[in-house]
Amino acid sequence: MQKISLFLLCTALSALPALAQTPPLADPAPAAVPSYVGDRMRKPPDYRDWIYLSAGLDMSYNAGQAPDHHMFGNVFVDPAAYRAFRRSGTWPDKTTIVLEMRGARDKGSINRRGLYQDGDVMGLEVHVKDEARFPGKWAFFAFDDDAPARMIPTSANCYACHAAHAAVDTTFVQFYPTLLPLATARGTLSAAYLQDAGAAAAR
Amino acid sequence: MQKISLFLLCTALSALPALAQTPPLADPAPAAVPSYVGDRMRKPPDYRDWIYLSAGLDMSYNAGQAPDHHMFGNVFVDPAAYRAFRRSGTWPDKTTIVLEMRGARDKGSINRRGLYQDGDVMGLEVHVKDEARFPGKWAFFAFDDDAPARMIPTSANCYACHAAHAAVDTTFVQFYPTLLPLATARGTLSAAYLQDAGAAAAR
Repeated sequence: MQKISLFLLCTALSALPALAQTPPLADPAPAAVPSYVGDRMRKPPDYRDWIYLSAGLDMSYNAGQAPDHHMFGNVFVDPAAYRAFRRSGTWPDKTTIVLEMRGARDKGSINRRGLYQDGDVMGLEVHVKDEARFPGKWAFFAFDDDAPARMIPTSANCYACHAAHAAVDTTFVQFYPTLLPLATARGTLSAAYLQDAGAAAAR
Repeated sequence: MQKISLFLLCTALSALPALAQTPPLADPAPAAVPSYVGDRMRKPPDYRDWIYLSAGLDMSYNAGQAPDHHMFGNVFVDPAAYRAFRRSGTWPDKTTIVLEMRGARDKGSINRRGLYQDGDVMGLEVHVKDEARFPGKWAFFAFDDDAPARMIPTSANCYACHAAHAAVDTTFVQFYPTLLPLATARGTLSAAYLQDAGAAAAR
């Protein structure tokens, strides 16, 4: 089975084991993001308290075989970056976007149709803008567990695909319904995205 | 076509027109919730900045005919109630939970498989705890547009169903994957939910 997220091409998410769940019990101050240990990025500990951008189901730009199980992808952004985007229609330095993958369940409790999200996190990926640190300004990280992760090499397809198709500053704002109108109004949509959209409209 | 959300039985959401989108441009102070005008509740203006609990797809406790279009339901809670839940495993007075329904799209931009969320909000429902105001402590409201809405009468099925099956204090915490472990650890799961879960395990 091949399972590829739109957000990051690079990671075969379904191959990852479920990450351990550590429910937050206290109310710590928001962690500064991004944070690193040497050449590794720390997993943002409090991303579930960030701003929700959207959720998708089984998204892929590969029309091939359907997955053998369904997966939701929840996307969050740190609140400071979100506030800046609302003002400007684009992302400031230090923007941190998290994609959290969760398995989908159908039958459970009183649910008899449709899908809801499982307790197990099946994958966690981060897209971070850190202009001083990364030559291309942005970098991707995939976390297998709570340990800091190494940057995904820039030779991976995710970088080229985000550059070629993402609506705003290499991020897939076209899939974040409350942000797309802001970017449209501010004129911050990428030339690549506008070209894709024009080609789709002409078909 | 019959389309019923798990969160609120009462509203035929798919019959609602898409609500007008008003992207937030400034950073107003968080609105106090709940807020009323006479016997009507004001629609929370900033719920997209609240804490995301989960999203489902086409959820229904009616196993009947599949819907003729897919719908995501995003659930948010006000931050103060979320912080209290993390400490206590249950909801404080004034808790406000929002269910936002959005249509699902399949083909668009580079997406070729799976579903993502549309720009149009197809329905908005609120479940609010206000002990001094409502004899049953909680009440439901469905918003057709930005205008304040009247409470859904307590004779509606949603009240009975939430009382009979919801995991914590008449709310469907069993579908909120980060909250269920907290409620389990705090021992705040309802007797009705534990009975449902026991019956399901015995089948």
